[in-house]
Amino acid sequence: MRLQRIDHVGYAVTDLEEAVRHHQRLFGATVSHREELQRDGVREALLAVGDSYLQLLEPTRDDSPVARFLARNGPGVHHVGYGVADVAASLDDLRSLGVRLVDEVPRHGSRGCMVAFLHPKNAMGVLVELVEDPSLVADLSEPLHEA
Amino acid sequence: MRLQRIDHVGYAVTDLEEAVRHHQRLFGATVSHREELQRDGVREALLAVGDSYLQLLEPTRDDSPVARFLARNGPGVHHVGYGVADVAASLDDLRSLGVRLVDEVPRHGSRGCMVAFLHPKNAMGVLVELVEDPSLVADLSEPLHEA
Repeated sequence: MRLQRIDHVGYAVTDLEEAVRHHQRLFGATVSHREELQRDGVREALLAVGDSYLQLLEPTRDDSPVARFLARNGPGVHHVGYGVADVAASLDDLRSLGVRLVDEVPRHGSRGCMVAFLHPKNAMGVLVELVEDPSLVADLSEPLHEA
Repeated sequence: MRLQRIDHVGYAVTDLEEAVRHHQRLFGATVSHREELQRDGVREALLAVGDSYLQLLEPTRDDSPVARFLARNGPGVHHVGYGVADVAASLDDLRSLGVRLVDEVPRHGSRGCMVAFLHPKNAMGVLVELVEDPSLVADLSEPLHEA
């Protein structure tokens, strides 16, 4: 497997609208996508930065992972999302290496992507999300399944 | 000013070579640049991820910012570097908005870039680095100084 790109950096924030206004005021950033992910207990705003996104995440319930992160650490970088060609094949590769996974199978993320989280204990303390963006896969000149 | 791209995500690590091997083993990542930054008290390895970098940072002295981060938080995301066309002009823009800066003037970073850090208190708890990459500026079709 191969990390193709930094898909997004996910910030945990306490107030989504304040965080959006802050990034608009300082950096002229604009919201390119909004979504609420019930399973993850978050509401997100994606700010386009080049071909990547700055993802702002506000918890929608107290027991969501982002709420627990905020309670423990305060606002900050919650996770990093890396683009891969095929999340399912990547999970197979990682499993064969003995890597600890949060998601054993790909699931639906925002923007219609398939995603899976790896366990931070296996990634230098960083919570890593693998992201397969169907709008990009169609453009890839490389084979989807690498040997 | 405008954030053009995610230039890099900087991980604080306790053992640079172990972190490099880990990313090679899991993700097939290879080192595209190494540098020691005496002023910052760090040794870095840059792993290319698409047009961005995963930056691994190991402290070279106990009083460096990355060493203090590791003592306080353990390994994890230390900062996010965003590409801008002109760091000096960006600092002027941010100063006029009352934004708190770590670096009042641009300074030399790795890869021959000019860089400046903003204060995390002003960026949702995230330490943000602005990066002007001279190898990219030459390619830009957009004006370097925006109105």
